[in-house]
Amino acid sequence: MQIDHLGIATRSLSEGVERWRALVGGPFSEPEEVASQRVRVVFGELGGTHIELLEPTSPDSPIARFVESRGEGFHHVAFHVESVNAELDRLAASGRRLVDDRARPGARGRRVGFAHPSAFGGVLIEFVEGP
Amino acid sequence: MQIDHLGIATRSLSEGVERWRALVGGPFSEPEEVASQRVRVVFGELGGTHIELLEPTSPDSPIARFVESRGEGFHHVAFHVESVNAELDRLAASGRRLVDDRARPGARGRRVGFAHPSAFGGVLIEFVEGP
Repeated sequence: MQIDHLGIATRSLSEGVERWRALVGGPFSEPEEVASQRVRVVFGELGGTHIELLEPTSPDSPIARFVESRGEGFHHVAFHVESVNAELDRLAASGRRLVDDRARPGARGRRVGFAHPSAFGGVLIEFVEGP
Repeated sequence: MQIDHLGIATRSLSEGVERWRALVGGPFSEPEEVASQRVRVVFGELGGTHIELLEPTSPDSPIARFVESRGEGFHHVAFHVESVNAELDRLAASGRRLVDDRARPGARGRRVGFAHPSAFGGVLIEFVEGP
């Protein structure tokens, strides 16, 4: 199970891109809106994996609430898996709390699912399926 | 510049190890005390890189203060570099705020240095040098 990306909450994608340019190799992706999460995201290459910068598109976006309560910064770590549903089932069977009990559409046309931060000591884990 | 590890703050190494065992491949390292940081740490393989679990050894440890104010969870991301001092100099020259202006001894006998979280939008960045 490889790390797919690190998710970083930011107030502004343009500020985030400026900040991370010093460590990110190559260009960032074009901004993509993930309507279900009320965020706009870009991806860049970082240290053998990727970062996803997430900007809220609405005050009731989960990312807006996160930034409001904890400030900008690290939001989640995503793992690339063959089957999101299989990982969610495996965690549920071991008694871990989940955010999603089934895979749902995420950024870049991938299917994704989140465990609950309490399942991994405050770290929000995403599983990402696909190419 | 590759990711060396993700640092996760935890109240208790044994609880942390239990939580992360589901995602970590293979055994965790033996606990190591880093006296200068007043922490005890273990490393494990995670998703093509490593995680470092950090437990405070004193109430005035930076990790104790972190857990007190923000709770357990993601603490820093470390990059493997040829020269910590060269990276710190490069960031300082671009006006980034640093925690360390020179490399210092860290866990596993490596030389390490930290940028300030404000330099990367709330994300604490460590550079690690060595084998």
